[in-house]
Amino acid sequence: MRDLLREVLDANRRIASAGLATLTWGNVSGIDRGAGVYVIKPSGVPYDRLTEESLVTVDVETGEVVGGTLKPSVDSETHRLLYQAFPAIGGITHTHSTYAVAFAQAGRDIPVLGTTHADNFDGPIRCTRDLTPEECARDYERNTGLAILDLLDGDAESVPAALTAGHGPFTWGPTATKSLETAIVCEAVAEIALRTLALNPHAAPPEHLIRRHYSRKHGPDAYYGNLSEAG
Amino acid sequence: MRDLLREVLDANRRIASAGLATLTWGNVSGIDRGAGVYVIKPSGVPYDRLTEESLVTVDVETGEVVGGTLKPSVDSETHRLLYQAFPAIGGITHTHSTYAVAFAQAGRDIPVLGTTHADNFDGPIRCTRDLTPEECARDYERNTGLAILDLLDGDAESVPAALTAGHGPFTWGPTATKSLETAIVCEAVAEIALRTLALNPHAAPPEHLIRRHYSRKHGPDAYYGNLSEAG
Amino acid sequence: MRDLLREVLDANRRIASAGLATLTWGNVSGIDRGAGVYVIKPSGVPYDRLTEESLVTVDVETGEVVGGTLKPSVDSETHRLLYQAFPAIGGITHTHSTYAVAFAQAGRDIPVLGTTHADNFDGPIRCTRDLTPEECARDYERNTGLAILDLLDGDAESVPAALTAGHGPFTWGPTATKSLETAIVCEAVAEIALRTLALNPHAAPPEHLIRRHYSRKHGPDAYYGNLSEAG
Amino acid sequence: MRDLLREVLDANRRIASAGLATLTWGNVSGIDRGAGVYVIKPSGVPYDRLTEESLVTVDVETGEVVGGTLKPSVDSETHRLLYQAFPAIGGITHTHSTYAVAFAQAGRDIPVLGTTHADNFDGPIRCTRDLTPEECARDYERNTGLAILDLLDGDAESVPAALTAGHGPFTWGPTATKSLETAIVCEAVAEIALRTLALNPHAAPPEHLIRRHYSRKHGPDAYYGNLSEAG
Repeated sequence: MRDLLREVLDANRRIASAGLATLTWGNVSGIDRGAGVYVIKPSGVPYDRLTEESLVTVDVETGEVVGGTLKPSVDSETHRLLYQAFPAIGGITHTHSTYAVAFAQAGRDIPVLGTTHADNFDGPIRCTRDLTPEECARDYERNTGLAILDLLDGDAESVPAALTAGHGPFTWGPTATKSLETAIVCEAVAEIALRTLALNPHAAPPEHLIRRHYSRKHGPDAYYGNLSEAG
Repeated sequence: MRDLLREVLDANRRIASAGLATLTWGNVSGIDRGAGVYVIKPSGVPYDRLTEESLVTVDVETGEVVGGTLKPSVDSETHRLLYQAFPAIGGITHTHSTYAVAFAQAGRDIPVLGTTHADNFDGPIRCTRDLTPEECARDYERNTGLAILDLLDGDAESVPAALTAGHGPFTWGPTATKSLETAIVCEAVAEIALRTLALNPHAAPPEHLIRRHYSRKHGPDAYYGNLSEAG
Repeated sequence: MRDLLREVLDANRRIASAGLATLTWGNVSGIDRGAGVYVIKPSGVPYDRLTEESLVTVDVETGEVVGGTLKPSVDSETHRLLYQAFPAIGGITHTHSTYAVAFAQAGRDIPVLGTTHADNFDGPIRCTRDLTPEECARDYERNTGLAILDLLDGDAESVPAALTAGHGPFTWGPTATKSLETAIVCEAVAEIALRTLALNPHAAPPEHLIRRHYSRKHGPDAYYGNLSEAG
Repeated sequence: MRDLLREVLDANRRIASAGLATLTWGNVSGIDRGAGVYVIKPSGVPYDRLTEESLVTVDVETGEVVGGTLKPSVDSETHRLLYQAFPAIGGITHTHSTYAVAFAQAGRDIPVLGTTHADNFDGPIRCTRDLTPEECARDYERNTGLAILDLLDGDAESVPAALTAGHGPFTWGPTATKSLETAIVCEAVAEIALRTLALNPHAAPPEHLIRRHYSRKHGPDAYYGNLSEAG
């Protein structure tokens, strides 16, 4: 648990140092599957005041706070639903990074426009449908998670990221750190995509180039990387 | 008063460190309602030379300088009018942050395009009408404040920010610090809005999503946050 | 002369620290009218290697190097022409800051779109005509200066800045430091102008607002500022 | 070799400090022609963990790793092909810098829109054709290099940079350091070009201005610069 608290603390601080956050907007969590709990940023606390003690531990089955004295992030229930739905997920990041949010507000997927995207995601980063009035009125955060599940069709691995319509990006991965790095990548590909579309609204790379780049880094034929933690 | 001087000094310095200012453009003030005075940045002094002694104290009723040896910001009379009109306001920030100024120069409101906006403002950040030649010729800064009042219709709380046409943003709040943070938020939502409109000129989130996010953070049903100063 | 060397050194370093330069692109000079010489950045030397000893002193009448062991900036002859044409100019800055260069490459003036511009410039920052093949073939840098003179019609004070077509901004002022600050302002108004035009291609503030802001800071009725060096 | 390791290490770190990289994206190599080997970044290692020991030495003829314990960058074979084709090249840089990648993803050359470009490149930075399915299926990185050769028509000196379609920029030069600086320039001209095209889609400077600027800095009549390493 001590290691998880340290990792979640560091990952939350990286939201700010990586330029993904304004004020307190954005949160990272990480899960201890054995203990059945996840650790998440407290609500509304600035990154430079976060300590291990300020983090909140939540029971993944019941949603009850089982550690810490503060309230968890308002988005905690979205995290919890994703942890329940996908046993392989170890960490989740939500930010309001500006390019990714622009796509979410525009209601547009971030399309696969080149190898930078394909190195990291096996397809577009999709944007959810709008929630209904009923879904907003009750259990809103849980329904946000359900709208993400609708996009994924049981596969959280090929594209470990989604945009919630009108809101912003959620990313995930085997660890909290990895989910934060995927948030950095998500913002970078959104930034490049916006500029690409300004230069060529019909830009579309050939599918065989995209396949090649994704398989350089993922799956049985991958030949990228040296360090386990760098992928 | 000592605390107010310190807070106003820090908030003015944060204009620069938050990237909202070029050179000396931008000013923060804070009011001591009991003493009937507000403290404001002196005119034309770079942020890195500001000291508590250089700040200017102004009588909120008469507009006379009652403390400090320098002239107050040229925008002081706009601040004063807002303090007079809204007793709940404790601090005011004016900047020339580039995205918010672009909306002001374009004569456009910053529309509510998503939850980042709705988390902070209960409606668009509106842009004033143009001032008339007469309003510009005499009592210009006071008339700038009156044009802001026209927008607000007596409600300075729902949307604690306005754009003055052709000029830039004013933001306010219960304290100088809070008004500065609202200036940061105003710039962030302007930046995201410009990019959203580039991707989808007709973007518009459903009203029930917007309602939900505003009420998560404001009013009797709010459930966001842990620290009083973080909202 | 010692003070001038120090000021020109500092102003050149500020090109880099203010984010106006890539690599070695950009140069500042300052003149000693009594001695009839100006001091300018050497050609091609990175900002972090500049010393007072590396600066180059040039005779304003003859163009001969009279101090220093390096070659002056390739743009030295443009500086010299402006010093000869306008006795009130004390310093000149040339940069390749990206937004101002975009206007220069587009062959467009930076229009007066709001008060940020009007606080600093009494009219658009104009872009020169293209030079002819003959003007490029011989005495190119001097002809660049002559094209700037064509724009100014004898008045270097109202708008102390110009864009050379296809190239970039030159700014000037009573001192080297002030010319550098005007380069910062020129880039800021170009950045805001590009965004304003994206939001509203027909944006145009009322003339009386523009007059008011320029006269707040300049001329007999100015009431902005406290420090002589801050304007 | 010790000097080459140091230079390649420094140049790789500058990818990050110059703001050209997200995470581990981007690599620099430098060659020792006498020894017939080049030194390149290892695959997937973050810049802040790079050491001289972590760099990989590759035989330029056979492609075999002859020094270091890690795998070379996945792009190593593209570097090798360029070294084989052009004996004058001493260093190569590949990045995913965002503006240059946007042009590559749009499938557009970076056109010569002004003197900033012409000071550095004798023509547009061209974008390769798309690779075929066969070229992607086998020897992909080598085929990427061959597509670059197709653009250059035997001349690697006039424009020491190319965009690979859907992917990003490669730049080169007499040393690793110089290739990195050209990557910085490539990103700067891409950034300015995108903004120029937003302001004027038909922008095009006169050819004689472009000639003049290129010849100020290159060839027998060049008169720019003082330091050999600054060009």
